[in-house]
Amino acid sequence: MKILLENCRFLDVRTMTVKSGSILIKDGVFARVGGDMATDAERRIDIKNNLVIPGFCDAHAHSPMVFLRSSAEDLPLDRWLNEAVFPYEAKLTPEDNYTLTKLAVCEYLSSGITSCFDMYSYQEAMAAAFRDSGFRCVFCGAINDYGGTPETLEELYNKLNSYDPLISYKLGFHAEYTTRLETMKDIAALAKKYKAPVWCHNCETKSETEGCISRYGTTPTVLLDSLGMFDYGGGGYHCVYLSDDDINIFAKRKLSIVTNPASNLKLASGIADLMKFKGAGINLAVGTDGAASNNALDMFREMYLASVLQKLRYTDASVMSAEDVLFAATAGGAKAMGLEDCGYIEEGMKADFAVIDMHRPNMQPENDIIKNLVFSGSKDNVIMTAVNGNILYENGEFFIGEDICTIYERTRNICERIFG
Amino acid sequence: MKILLENCRFLDVRTMTVKSGSILIKDGVFARVGGDMATDAERRIDIKNNLVIPGFCDAHAHSPMVFLRSSAEDLPLDRWLNEAVFPYEAKLTPEDNYTLTKLAVCEYLSSGITSCFDMYSYQEAMAAAFRDSGFRCVFCGAINDYGGTPETLEELYNKLNSYDPLISYKLGFHAEYTTRLETMKDIAALAKKYKAPVWCHNCETKSETEGCISRYGTTPTVLLDSLGMFDYGGGGYHCVYLSDDDINIFAKRKLSIVTNPASNLKLASGIADLMKFKGAGINLAVGTDGAASNNALDMFREMYLASVLQKLRYTDASVMSAEDVLFAATAGGAKAMGLEDCGYIEEGMKADFAVIDMHRPNMQPENDIIKNLVFSGSKDNVIMTAVNGNILYENGEFFIGEDICTIYERTRNICERIFG
Repeated sequence: MKILLENCRFLDVRTMTVKSGSILIKDGVFARVGGDMATDAERRIDIKNNLVIPGFCDAHAHSPMVFLRSSAEDLPLDRWLNEAVFPYEAKLTPEDNYTLTKLAVCEYLSSGITSCFDMYSYQEAMAAAFRDSGFRCVFCGAINDYGGTPETLEELYNKLNSYDPLISYKLGFHAEYTTRLETMKDIAALAKKYKAPVWCHNCETKSETEGCISRYGTTPTVLLDSLGMFDYGGGGYHCVYLSDDDINIFAKRKLSIVTNPASNLKLASGIADLMKFKGAGINLAVGTDGAASNNALDMFREMYLASVLQKLRYTDASVMSAEDVLFAATAGGAKAMGLEDCGYIEEGMKADFAVIDMHRPNMQPENDIIKNLVFSGSKDNVIMTAVNGNILYENGEFFIGEDICTIYERTRNICERIFG
Repeated sequence: MKILLENCRFLDVRTMTVKSGSILIKDGVFARVGGDMATDAERRIDIKNNLVIPGFCDAHAHSPMVFLRSSAEDLPLDRWLNEAVFPYEAKLTPEDNYTLTKLAVCEYLSSGITSCFDMYSYQEAMAAAFRDSGFRCVFCGAINDYGGTPETLEELYNKLNSYDPLISYKLGFHAEYTTRLETMKDIAALAKKYKAPVWCHNCETKSETEGCISRYGTTPTVLLDSLGMFDYGGGGYHCVYLSDDDINIFAKRKLSIVTNPASNLKLASGIADLMKFKGAGINLAVGTDGAASNNALDMFREMYLASVLQKLRYTDASVMSAEDVLFAATAGGAKAMGLEDCGYIEEGMKADFAVIDMHRPNMQPENDIIKNLVFSGSKDNVIMTAVNGNILYENGEFFIGEDICTIYERTRNICERIFG
């Protein structure tokens, strides 16, 4: 199917400039970008001088956790996990995760997010939900001492990497503090076997970081690197308490960091030092984390926080520009997730995009469109979201293969059963 | 005109509970609330089991500053004011402020805000814009050493307090650090003459607080109180650096505090100690501040930040509940602004309300509706905003007496002239 987007402005995140013209989408990719063009497109859409942007890449997600939204609140981290999260997660079924993933997909789409980097349980059921919705997902292995083994990780790695063009899979595990050393060594062996990057939660909290030092005499990053975990790249989620040595390893191994500012705030974990990461030349991405700790899956919130929390941290209003944050939320995320053909509106790239309504009061005047997007943009500016050239969200309606009301109803039933 | 809202859920912020039933609006007030009712209403609206909430009270605003949105970025506070704000503000005309106020009103409405507490220049032109839009505004006197006198303050106080039922006026001045002592004494005399509360910016930054101490040997709050400024109440905007003595004065004089978390973040000013204010029993309100420093006029952003920044400040995820923040953003704001008949959905109260779409993915599941509203709510959930019983915003359209595109065009012309 060919779609022609006419009267566009569109964002080039490589140069952080706004360009004008038409965009032709064919076979799921941007076939032509810019200028006027005559075409036999099946659908012509007047973008009305609004702004086409690369879809946001939500580079750290636990999609099915939407069922916990507003149920696990105002608790310190340890009680949050042990009292309000783990006991209820234990009751989830694969069918539940299928439904909950679809609910999360709708929320992503409403915020212009076109892909997520997801770590959770029952990943085959989730993969079916992403595929059936038409949404792009990069899975991350989620094994730890409480579920999964290096064998199940390898099985899923092979299975889901050849499951559907929208789905890919990265080696990974939950975190150092939940995974015994033997398992981590086995995962490092898989990294070598497949010449593959590895991902995990890394230094989300001060206590987990101190715990690793008392267990192993060193930080998680140094420990994992010494196992050969990062010989083929990868990265870390959160990274609030990295040491300078850790940052040097991230830079040397060309690892990416995914920051999760909203979740780190809500759980009072702290503020990651993004300016230092930037100074070290580390690729930065942005993620929402799960709805249990965020509670919204909204990239506008994350972009805003990623910038302004640095200003707070450094007591300097001049640090962490809108441009840096917007790059991290789009092309930086795509790079972290191994989506080499996503993140840019360029010929040959996957047609994952969102359309931002510039004719809303929060986008006026247009003194600086990129700053408007990052500092005053909001979900109500998203009028269209498309993945792989398919429009999945348009003017508030979802086109993901089933009526959203049936997803709400099944979610309600899941919550009634689980919370009783 | 009578309007009947049917199939409602509505929020009682006094008890923080959600109730069900119909709501009848007549002559600008809630005439009947709850239960089923037969009526000859001119308009019946099916609320479809969505949530009617009291309109948000934006308790600190500089509406016309929308023209500076995204033009004054990434600068430390002193350079921000002196290089990017003051020189351009000097070029504004009353006609500009009329237009810019209307643009701000549209943005407020799109976020469910039904009134603002506004301090800026050319307040008569602004009053006309609020009146013509049908929006409620409480003005605050804005005089300082660079503009206005106690005489012009008194004149505006009398004129705008009898201008229109939607408009009221409070005594006020910019801040201690911009206003000479004689002027502040004159304002305190006006407070006594009219038995009226007084408002100003108070301890927004550390340097302004230290500056007052070096000038007068005491904090702004102690100084102003010693002048008799707060004999009839009032309050302060920002209040990031209040001392314990200051907080005691706020409590003793029953002053309100308006917190502006987004602006304080963006300008790297700090985090106000809301938990301490709460502990002292001080009435708390929430404001967006102006678009030059926020950059959005969005109460969802402010509510979210008002809670999670306390969690960060106290390194404790259990502090500052959604309920406390929601109260501050509605009834707490109305109280601060002297709008005794606003802030609650109760019979006889002004019909200032918003309708929240609960059938969006970020509002599902409904484990806790109030927490959904504060922690995952967003502007895209606002499907209707009404002031004084008049629907000014509905399904993305604005009904404020003129086409929004003409407001955008005039705003563009203003920016072209000013930034040239």
